[in-house]
Amino acid sequence: MSYQAIKEQAYEANMQLPALGLVLFTFGNVSVADHSKGVFAIKPSGVPYAELSPEKMVIVDFDAKTVEGTGRPSSDTKTHAVLYKHWPEIGGIVHTHSTYATAWAQAQRDIPIFGTTHADHLTVDVPCAPPMSDEMIKGNYEHETGFQIMNYMKEKGLSYKDVEMILVGNHAPFTWGKTAHKAVYNAAVLEEVAKMAFLTENINAQAPRLKDSLIRKHFERKHGPDAYYGQ
Amino acid sequence: MSYQAIKEQAYEANMQLPALGLVLFTFGNVSVADHSKGVFAIKPSGVPYAELSPEKMVIVDFDAKTVEGTGRPSSDTKTHAVLYKHWPEIGGIVHTHSTYATAWAQAQRDIPIFGTTHADHLTVDVPCAPPMSDEMIKGNYEHETGFQIMNYMKEKGLSYKDVEMILVGNHAPFTWGKTAHKAVYNAAVLEEVAKMAFLTENINAQAPRLKDSLIRKHFERKHGPDAYYGQ
Amino acid sequence: MSYQAIKEQAYEANMQLPALGLVLFTFGNVSVADHSKGVFAIKPSGVPYAELSPEKMVIVDFDAKTVEGTGRPSSDTKTHAVLYKHWPEIGGIVHTHSTYATAWAQAQRDIPIFGTTHADHLTVDVPCAPPMSDEMIKGNYEHETGFQIMNYMKEKGLSYKDVEMILVGNHAPFTWGKTAHKAVYNAAVLEEVAKMAFLTENINAQAPRLKDSLIRKHFERKHGPDAYYGQ
Amino acid sequence: MSYQAIKEQAYEANMQLPALGLVLFTFGNVSVADHSKGVFAIKPSGVPYAELSPEKMVIVDFDAKTVEGTGRPSSDTKTHAVLYKHWPEIGGIVHTHSTYATAWAQAQRDIPIFGTTHADHLTVDVPCAPPMSDEMIKGNYEHETGFQIMNYMKEKGLSYKDVEMILVGNHAPFTWGKTAHKAVYNAAVLEEVAKMAFLTENINAQAPRLKDSLIRKHFERKHGPDAYYGQ
Repeated sequence: MSYQAIKEQAYEANMQLPALGLVLFTFGNVSVADHSKGVFAIKPSGVPYAELSPEKMVIVDFDAKTVEGTGRPSSDTKTHAVLYKHWPEIGGIVHTHSTYATAWAQAQRDIPIFGTTHADHLTVDVPCAPPMSDEMIKGNYEHETGFQIMNYMKEKGLSYKDVEMILVGNHAPFTWGKTAHKAVYNAAVLEEVAKMAFLTENINAQAPRLKDSLIRKHFERKHGPDAYYGQ
Repeated sequence: MSYQAIKEQAYEANMQLPALGLVLFTFGNVSVADHSKGVFAIKPSGVPYAELSPEKMVIVDFDAKTVEGTGRPSSDTKTHAVLYKHWPEIGGIVHTHSTYATAWAQAQRDIPIFGTTHADHLTVDVPCAPPMSDEMIKGNYEHETGFQIMNYMKEKGLSYKDVEMILVGNHAPFTWGKTAHKAVYNAAVLEEVAKMAFLTENINAQAPRLKDSLIRKHFERKHGPDAYYGQ
Repeated sequence: MSYQAIKEQAYEANMQLPALGLVLFTFGNVSVADHSKGVFAIKPSGVPYAELSPEKMVIVDFDAKTVEGTGRPSSDTKTHAVLYKHWPEIGGIVHTHSTYATAWAQAQRDIPIFGTTHADHLTVDVPCAPPMSDEMIKGNYEHETGFQIMNYMKEKGLSYKDVEMILVGNHAPFTWGKTAHKAVYNAAVLEEVAKMAFLTENINAQAPRLKDSLIRKHFERKHGPDAYYGQ
Repeated sequence: MSYQAIKEQAYEANMQLPALGLVLFTFGNVSVADHSKGVFAIKPSGVPYAELSPEKMVIVDFDAKTVEGTGRPSSDTKTHAVLYKHWPEIGGIVHTHSTYATAWAQAQRDIPIFGTTHADHLTVDVPCAPPMSDEMIKGNYEHETGFQIMNYMKEKGLSYKDVEMILVGNHAPFTWGKTAHKAVYNAAVLEEVAKMAFLTENINAQAPRLKDSLIRKHFERKHGPDAYYGQ
């Protein structure tokens, strides 16, 4: 892809966040990567969505250094860079402070898998990484946020190819995917799953997690070798 | 009805789901049946609502075999087919993952009849079928979902002509009606009743179910032989 | 006012309900009275808001008999008629099944006066009349609903001039006012107060009622002889 | 600034409140101050947002006396005047009855700092001043509301330059900032933080407050001498 094409994709993907009700003001960002070029385009820092344009997107490399563009890249750029550097098969990353997902992150709890809406997208609880250590926070914070995400995925035995979303404790969600479009889709699904799980526990404090046979069935009909799902 | 007419009705009915706020992305589908022809039209699988058109609707028979159309019919087609085959008087079926109704399904609880908004539409708690057995899940899953619905209605002594909505435990709601328009109406009513019941229990954990005299009065003024209701 | 003028006012007032998010489908109605003529205009029964027009409004007298118009008047017409007959100073009545107010009605609880938003409009808890007796329900139900409202107001020592809203237990809210515009305003205020009170109790189960000095101050600055309030 | 310019800014800022979903009817107001002239422009009392215009804004001095304009200034004008008189570095004040923030005020609780969304804006719990004393209420109520706010800030050792928002117990939120634009921004942030905190406690009744290292990091990356944040 040309830089221009990457920037246009990043612009389109960023504009989906307010359209889907996932951001207030500038509380979110989307990036689009081209691994063959070793770069990604990301939203400039602090620019309201209504004033974005493809030209304002910033191209940075996987060490978070600006390659093209005059704006300051999003303050979360280093987190995106770390993930792209270590996860070669993702083409887009989304960070939001969407209301329900952020509430679960603040509650420092994994989101239990309560139903098939969840199982259509992942077979495990949505992981919630613990708040970062004081050392990581005082150091290169946004860079370390990327490692907090990767380390917790590893610790839980989760592959970024299977589980495309995580909560960072006390902070907010990150989602990703093969494309930015998929990452944005995952951000909206996560918010809906987070709201449904909140309601489920309110309606039945003893609501059980989804049983394995249903988890497998729903995930496989959508993602397995014989996938046929789409509703 | 001509296939064209059925497809147009199915298109119109499907487009009501996003307009009523009942679906995220493609998480839902509506079908329209013509029992005299033994077929129904249903949404193609995985197509965003914004890209739907009457031409894209798929005509299938009551064994879920495609009769006309090039798209893959919704992954829930077999559930619809089973219900049409056994319930000769329904002309439309709706499946959504609407937020509040799905939360009750995930909580595996019937929705208690707490007020007249509920009683205007049905005289019993909204039934919640238990999660399906592992055998049914591993087998012909969507086909068996239809039987899970029918079996639970039978077990509870409910007629599909009186009770036009059900929750499938851990999954989500299905609604139906003499027409697709009525089935969509029922899906929206169910979501509202589910939200009100969630709030009612939060406001008063001991809230009693509606008393019989009010249930009968409200249902009969809308559905009885001397119906006069419409607000 | 001419019948035409009353019907136009009733049309305008009814159309405010969906605009304010207070109704789903046809779950609500507004009427506009002219006491000098002994009539009121009300929404026809079961007609979707999108299909309403001033011409479709029905003129009925205070015994609920149609005076002009071809449609069937709202099924709640008798309740409106009873209230107009006994309360000479109200010019408009609204009935909705708005979500939060209805949830309090289903919970069979008065809405506690927790803050100044509430006190700006009334000095007492929003009253919730108990569900009606089986006799009243089996008899002339909608007519008796009017008496249930009036009787509970009397029992609590409340004047309809001071308290312009009530919940009917297990059913839903009714509001009124000197004009239909004010009655619609009250319906929206009630819904907001109901939502805030639900949240308040969730945030602090021991939240105290507003103290008398604040209740009096806020009500009098808006409604007292030296009123100066308007925000 | 000319009076005309101040009024135009006040008009624009007031119109943001309904656009951001922070007000029902006229339940809110924004003012814009020019300290060099010793005046501010504020919304006229009781005028619906749809009927506002720059010309209708009222210019008053810091003793709340009208300097220019024919309308009655907002009933909360004296509160604004007191704050401008004592806080020389604020250029705008916002008062709303936004739903979630008002619920916390009614619950008479500070909003705990649960996450980085909160810490991006302030390093402490959102303060909730206690309900005012009967003496203050019976006296010059709106004038005293300004002192209740200032006194509680002092008592808690908070500077109005660091903490730009407060809840007044049993009443509702006030926010401010160097500009009216910032004050409106703060009002929307407060409402979102209030909603997230409500949800967080519902999801985990033992959710801990954010740890100091994260509070400092997030606040400083946005407000410190080396600020770089903007998302």
